[in-house]
Parts: sequence; C-alpha cells; structure tokens
Amino acid sequence: MKKLIINLAPTGMIPTKEITPHIPIHPQEIIKDVLHCSSMGASMIHIHARDSKGLPTYHKEIYAKIISGIREKRPDLIIVASTSGRNFPEFKQRSDVLQLEGDLKPDMASLTLSSLNFMQSASVNSPDMIMQLAKEMKEKGIKPELEVFDMGMVNYAKYLIKKGLIDPPYYFNILLGNIASAQSTLQEAGLILSSLPQNSIVSLTGLGASQKEMNGLGVIFADGVRVGLEDNIWLSKEENKLATNSNLVERVIKIANSLNRPIASANEVRELLGLDN
Amino acid sequence: MKKLIINLAPTGMIPTKEITPHIPIHPQEIIKDVLHCSSMGASMIHIHARDSKGLPTYHKEIYAKIISGIREKRPDLIIVASTSGRNFPEFKQRSDVLQLEGDLKPDMASLTLSSLNFMQSASVNSPDMIMQLAKEMKEKGIKPELEVFDMGMVNYAKYLIKKGLIDPPYYFNILLGNIASAQSTLQEAGLILSSLPQNSIVSLTGLGASQKEMNGLGVIFADGVRVGLEDNIWLSKEENKLATNSNLVERVIKIANSLNRPIASANEVRELLGLDN
Repeated sequence: MKKLIINLAPTGMIPTKEITPHIPIHPQEIIKDVLHCSSMGASMIHIHARDSKGLPTYHKEIYAKIISGIREKRPDLIIVASTSGRNFPEFKQRSDVLQLEGDLKPDMASLTLSSLNFMQSASVNSPDMIMQLAKEMKEKGIKPELEVFDMGMVNYAKYLIKKGLIDPPYYFNILLGNIASAQSTLQEAGLILSSLPQNSIVSLTGLGASQKEMNGLGVIFADGVRVGLEDNIWLSKEENKLATNSNLVERVIKIANSLNRPIASANEVRELLGLDN
Repeated sequence: MKKLIINLAPTGMIPTKEITPHIPIHPQEIIKDVLHCSSMGASMIHIHARDSKGLPTYHKEIYAKIISGIREKRPDLIIVASTSGRNFPEFKQRSDVLQLEGDLKPDMASLTLSSLNFMQSASVNSPDMIMQLAKEMKEKGIKPELEVFDMGMVNYAKYLIKKGLIDPPYYFNILLGNIASAQSTLQEAGLILSSLPQNSIVSLTGLGASQKEMNGLGVIFADGVRVGLEDNIWLSKEENKLATNSNLVERVIKIANSLNRPIASANEVRELLGLDN
C-alpha cells in the first residue's frame, strides 16, 4: 500500500477563539500545533496567517514568522501557504506570500481552480487571477496545491496543464461538502477522483461533519487526506465535543492503522512531489 | 413518453454580428426568430436584451419591447428573462426586468445557483444576491429558471427549498461543458440528473460543440432541452457551417421525431409548471 500523505490545515480563515478555543491563531500557537501534529505524522502543512486581532491577513511578514518557526525545528515539513482571495481580492495581496525568499519561501501555495460560493460569501478566483497566480508560482519555483471543490475545477486544471501553467506531478486537494459545491457522497468523490489527469497525487477531505468519512475514504482510495480545524472544528458534534488539531490527526492515524496503511514522512512526500530536500 | 419541452435561448450575452451574422440582437430580430422557432415547437423562450450598440443591457424597457412583440402574436409562449450579473453586478440592475408588470411581466427569470468562472471572466452570484433575487421573484410571482452548471448548484437549490425561497415544481436548466464547470459527459449529466430534488422538471443542454449530444441526451432522459445560439453558434464546426436558431431547433425536432417523442405545446408546459394561462 502506498504511504499516506497527511496534510494538516490547522487554522483557515473562519474559526475564531469564540467559535473554538482550540484554533491556533498567533504564529506561536500555529507553530506549536504544527510541530505536535507533525510528530504524529502530518507531513504537509497548509497555513493561513492572522493579524494581531485574529483576522485573516495576506502579509508575508506574518507568514515568515510561522514558516521560520516551523522550519527551525522541522525543516523537512512541506509548507503550503494560502493565496486565498476571499478577503483580499488583489493579485498583489494574494501573491504577497509568494515573494518570500530563501529559507522563508513556502514549498507550495494554494491555487483554487474557479470562483465558487461558500455559505456566507462568494470566493472569486477569476480565470485571469488563477493564471497570474499559477505563473507567479511557476516563476518562483513554488508548487501549486490545486484546490478542487466541484467537478469543473478538475477540467480547469486540465486546461492549465494544456497551457503549460502547471507541471506534473499535480497535487490535488479535493474538498467536498461545501454548500454550493460537490457534496461528500461516494458518487461525487468517485467521479472527481476518476476524472483527475494522469500524474496526479490526490488528497481528500470533507468540510464540517463529513471530514471523518472523507478522510476515511481518502485513507482507502486516495494518496492522502487533508485534516484540521480549518475544515471542521468538531470531534463529535452530537456529543458537543470540540476537536483539537491533534485530535483530528490522531483520528486519521487510527483509521490508517486499522487499515494497515503506513504514513508517509515529509521527506518521502518531498520525493513524491519532486520538491527540493 | 412525456412531451418534450423545447427552451430556446436565441441571443445570450456573448455572440455578436461579427461572430455570427445569424445572432438576433435587435428586438425585432429576436421577435422574428422566436416566432419562427416557436412555430416549429419551441415553447419557452430565454431572452437577453441588447442595447442599440448590440451590447448586453439590463434595462427593462428593452425587455418590454421584446416581450410585447412576442406576446402580440404568441401570448401562450413562456417567457424567461435573464437576470445575469456578468456585466451588471448590482441587485437593482439584475432585478430591473422583474419590475415589469401586467402584460409585460416575464413568466420566469433565470437564477444561477452559485458563482462560477466562464472562459474569460468570473460570473459572481453571491449567496446574498441569489437569495435576494429569489425573494423578489417569489414576491412578483415570477418563477425561477434554476441554472445549474455543476454538481454543487443542485445542492444549493435544495438549500433554497429548505429556506422556502423557491416553490415546486422546480424548473432546472442543466448547462454542461463550460470550461470550469461540469463537462458534457454521461457520468456528469447522469449524476446531476439523479441528484435533483423531487418535483423537478429538467432541461439539458451542452455549451458549444456538445449542444447536439446533450440535446440528444435530453430528448432521451430529460423533460426538455435548451437550444439556441446563446450556447452554440455552430451547426457543424468541422464543416465551418454556422447555425441559425431555426437550424438548431430543427435538429432537436428531428432527434425527437426519430425517437418518437412528442413536443409539448406552450400551454401544456404552462400547466406542467403551474404558470398562469
């Protein structure tokens, strides 16, 4: 069995301390969660930065603090920076983190493959913006994390491949269960997984309550899973139990153990994705 | 076999006279195409207005000219007005056509169920905008034409149903083949059709070259098809043959005849959808 890639998304843009006290917001909190979860088996880290008020920010200086704090202890981990445009629509803002250099440069950065609606608002990623971000990543040697929320985003990835804007192997993150995107069903997951281009490495997650099931499906049928409080704050909503990032990673590890699936180390994932050591 | 609903989309927002001389732009041209195509069997008419320069416009005065011209000859036809926000983002603009009253009021209006990317640009339909448009339509007694480009938009329709914002029977238009949405494959069409809520009446089309195949699939498996130059300007791209709206409707009629499927009259569709006679 191929080794499982565990991609941790510890923070995201939405959860606040009011929503869950377990959400890491301050760089030091994020670094602490990341180091603990990676000691358990997380190899890729999808980070979002927050400002001193706890609000999402695009400023590369805050990303730099998080990245240097992680790399001081674990230079092997694969760091994926968010380029989300939900709160910052301009290219200059979204690509700020791509300007970090040397030891601070992220290994990868998120590239959402279309515009979509979340529960409260639209997330606009125009064709031009996607292509500009892809070009900038290619120029900087930062590998895109291709974010797919619905069928058509896979098709758009194929279009970017045809245009030479992204290079193999393609790392896809399939996020199911958003209100206006594909749902966490076996049919939808199956159709999306089966439509990926050759040379794809794919990670699966469910948003909210379906994170557990989609992580389970990912352990069985995908190269990896994405897990963390960005996508789901509950360990058990029925029992009103909030999760920590460690709880969620632990659950994935238990599923993998129960299915006898080994966990990939960060260096093994680097090799698989063709990233520098 | 249930009678087939033919929904004609004669104009759209993109084609110009430079792209195809057959595109009806001026109200008189649109009226002429509509009357001819409805004499062949089109019962629903999805209209977009253009200004005197041929550019898309939201102004209800131009919609009024088209609607009165059609109704003078064919008051039975079901008229669906576009509320597209691709060029006009404000609610006041998008809902302008919903303010027409009496004999000028459209029977239905388009409601696209999420934000999405087309080839050149994003089409932003935020959750707030969708809900505002749905409320306005409900208040005015205008039935929504639910536009679905990808899986998740069906889920959002279910959310609107739960919120009481749209009423049965639900009229869905499934448009496949957009660059960043679901493609014109049997799997994707099948999954979307099978995920529709109960009490749905569904029409199918493919954008561009796949219009023919998706119309064929619609004749076999759906309640209706959408057809017209808005979605596809070619009769045969290989032979470099541009289509007219009549050509495209004729092709649907031939497919239906060959499969022995009868065509629904406008009054039969009115009854099916619960629209006033």
